[in-house]
Amino acid sequence: MEILEKAKELEKLGRKVIHFEIGEPDLPVPQKVKERAKEALSKYELKYTESTGIPQLKEAIANYYYETYRVVVEPTQIVITPGSSPALMAALKVVSERVGTVSYPDPGYPCYKNLLKLLNLEGVALPAFEEHGFKVQSFQVSTPALIVNSPANPTGTVYSRWELEKLAGKAFLISDEIYHGLTYRKPATSALQITRNCVVVNGFSKFFLMTGWRLGWAVVPKETLEEFTAILQNAVISPPTLSQLAALSCFDEEVLSQLKENVKTFYKRMKAMVEGLREIGFKVPQEPEGAFYVWADASAFTDDTYRFALELLENVSVATTPGIDFGKNGTSRFLRFSFCTGMEEISEGLERLYRYLRRR
Amino acid sequence: MEILEKAKELEKLGRKVIHFEIGEPDLPVPQKVKERAKEALSKYELKYTESTGIPQLKEAIANYYYETYRVVVEPTQIVITPGSSPALMAALKVVSERVGTVSYPDPGYPCYKNLLKLLNLEGVALPAFEEHGFKVQSFQVSTPALIVNSPANPTGTVYSRWELEKLAGKAFLISDEIYHGLTYRKPATSALQITRNCVVVNGFSKFFLMTGWRLGWAVVPKETLEEFTAILQNAVISPPTLSQLAALSCFDEEVLSQLKENVKTFYKRMKAMVEGLREIGFKVPQEPEGAFYVWADASAFTDDTYRFALELLENVSVATTPGIDFGKNGTSRFLRFSFCTGMEEISEGLERLYRYLRRR
Repeated sequence: MEILEKAKELEKLGRKVIHFEIGEPDLPVPQKVKERAKEALSKYELKYTESTGIPQLKEAIANYYYETYRVVVEPTQIVITPGSSPALMAALKVVSERVGTVSYPDPGYPCYKNLLKLLNLEGVALPAFEEHGFKVQSFQVSTPALIVNSPANPTGTVYSRWELEKLAGKAFLISDEIYHGLTYRKPATSALQITRNCVVVNGFSKFFLMTGWRLGWAVVPKETLEEFTAILQNAVISPPTLSQLAALSCFDEEVLSQLKENVKTFYKRMKAMVEGLREIGFKVPQEPEGAFYVWADASAFTDDTYRFALELLENVSVATTPGIDFGKNGTSRFLRFSFCTGMEEISEGLERLYRYLRRR
Repeated sequence: MEILEKAKELEKLGRKVIHFEIGEPDLPVPQKVKERAKEALSKYELKYTESTGIPQLKEAIANYYYETYRVVVEPTQIVITPGSSPALMAALKVVSERVGTVSYPDPGYPCYKNLLKLLNLEGVALPAFEEHGFKVQSFQVSTPALIVNSPANPTGTVYSRWELEKLAGKAFLISDEIYHGLTYRKPATSALQITRNCVVVNGFSKFFLMTGWRLGWAVVPKETLEEFTAILQNAVISPPTLSQLAALSCFDEEVLSQLKENVKTFYKRMKAMVEGLREIGFKVPQEPEGAFYVWADASAFTDDTYRFALELLENVSVATTPGIDFGKNGTSRFLRFSFCTGMEEISEGLERLYRYLRRR
C-alpha cells in the first residue's frame, strides 16, 4: 500500500512510473462483453438476481468445466459471486466450520490470511520453500483443510496433477484457480479433476479480463450449497446483474480464442521480464509457469526488499511489490514483478533498473 | 426462504402469485442512470477502481448529505461498497473490535444477526416492543455499540431526532439508513445530524432503485478509515466500476425529483395496504412512517404466522414473510407485507385474503 501511494504521489509530480506492482491485466475486456452489456441495458430492468447468480451463467460455467477439464459439474453446484473474494470468504467460513482449521501457503496471496482474520478464524501458514519449487508438500500438511493456489501468486508456480493428488489425500482442498487459463507450459490441473470433495474458486478478473465488473464463482460440494447460499445472501445479496449477463459472452468461441491468444502476449512479456531481471543480477529461481508475476530474489542487492522497493521507486520510478506482503517465509529477499504492462514499459523499466543498480 | 421456494414452485405450476414478500422496489431505475452506463461502456475500460470507490461519487454523496441533512461530510470519510451489506459487515467488524459488543433490534433485519455470526462476533438482540412503537429504548441499551435502523425493516417505524439522541448518548451507533428518502410523514433523521462519532450505512438499492447494480456506502469516522479500507480491499477488492459511474446520475436534479415523486406512489400503496389489512381483521399497531413494509398482527387468525404464511400461499397464492424471520420478540404473531408491487396486485392480494379468511 505504501508503494502504491508513493507511486501515485510521484505521478502527481509528473514522474512517469513503471508499474510492475499491479495485479490487474491491462488488456481490454472483449468487445462482445461490452456489446452484451449494452444490449442488456436496453432490454432488462437489472433487478436483484438469485443470490447465487442466474441459471444461464451457471450453465455456461458448468459447460466450460466440461470443455476445459472434461469434468462434469452440475450448474446447481456453482455459486456466482461479486468477484472471487466473497467466494473465498464463504469457502473459508464453510470449510472451517465443517472440516476444521485451514492452512494457506506462505508466500501466498495475502487475502487468505486477511480473510481468516476478518472471519475471526484460526489459520495456519504453511511455508512453500524455494527448494520445493515454492510448492507446499503433502508431508507438511497438518490441518484438515488447505488452500492451494495454482498457478500461484506471487511465485507463478503450477502444481502437477500428482502433487495436487497427494495434497488432496491429506486435506480438504480449497483450490484457488483464479489464474487458470494463464499458463505457459501446460494447462493447470483443477482440483475437480482429482476429487469432487473440494471447493474451487475462480472468477472473471484474470483470464477473462473483466476486473471492474466484479464477478467470480465457486464450485462447491452439493451438501454445502445451503451454507454457501445463506452466507452469500447475507454478505452480498446477489452478484451484479449486468456483469452476469455480459459475462455470458465470455464463452463465445470467438471470445475464448481471443483470450487464449492473449496468453501468448503474457508469455512474451514473461520471457522478457525473466531474462531482463537475470541480466540485471536478480535471481529468478523459477521461471513462472502461470499467472503474471515473476518472483525475483534480490539478495544480490539487499536483505530487505521492503526498503529496496521504496528505493527503486524513489530513484528510478519503478514500482514493485516487496515480498513481505506475501508472508514471512524468506520473503524479505524477494520482490514480485508483475507483467501486466506493455512490452515498451517492461523494457523501459528493466533498463532503468539496470542503469541504477549497475552504479549503486 | 421456504416461502420463496414454494412461491416459485406454484408459479411454475401456472398459479399467479401475489408477491407481498419481496423487499425490492419494483419501480424502474431512472433512465439517466442507464444512459450514463451506456456512455461509460463506450468510453472506459472498466478496470478496478480505488477499493473504497471513485472520488467523484464520494463527492456527489458528500454533497447529497449537505443538501439533504445540512451535514458536512468529507468525501474521504465515505467508502463505496458493492451493496450496503459489505458496508454493514465492515462496520460490524470495525466497531466490535474498537468499541465492543454490538446490539441489534428484534424484530429487525435478519442480516444483522447473520453477519455477526459470519464474522464470529458476539451480538445482543434488543427487543423493540410494540408498546414502545417498535423502537429500542435507551434504558434498554447495555452494550457499547448499537445498530439502529430508521426507517425500520420490518416495522416501518421511524425514530425521532430526540430518540436517536438518547440512543447516541448510550452507545456508539451503527445507523442503517438504507430506507432514508422513503418516509411518509417527515424526513428521517440521520445519525450524522447528532454525532460525528458513528457509522452510517446507506446505498443505492432502495430510494435510488438500483438494486441489481450492487452499490452502497458507509460514512465512517476518519480514524477508522484505514480499517474499513483494509477490510473492503480483502473482502470485495472494489465496487463495480460501471455501477459507480452510472450512479453519478442519481444526483441530477431531475432524477432526484423523480425519485421523490416515487415516494407518493409508495405512500398510496401503504395506505391501501394498511386499510385493507385492517378490514380483513389484521391488527396494524402502527401505520408505517417509512420503508415499504406493513408489520401486521395476525393473532385474530393464528399464533404461528410461519404456518399461516404457508397456508395463505398454498390456498390463495399470496406470499408474505413470517415474523419469525425477523427475530424472536413476539414475532410469531406477525406477518410482514411489503408493498413493492403495483396497486392492482395489492388490491387483488387483499381481496384474496379477505375472501379466504372470511370463510376460514
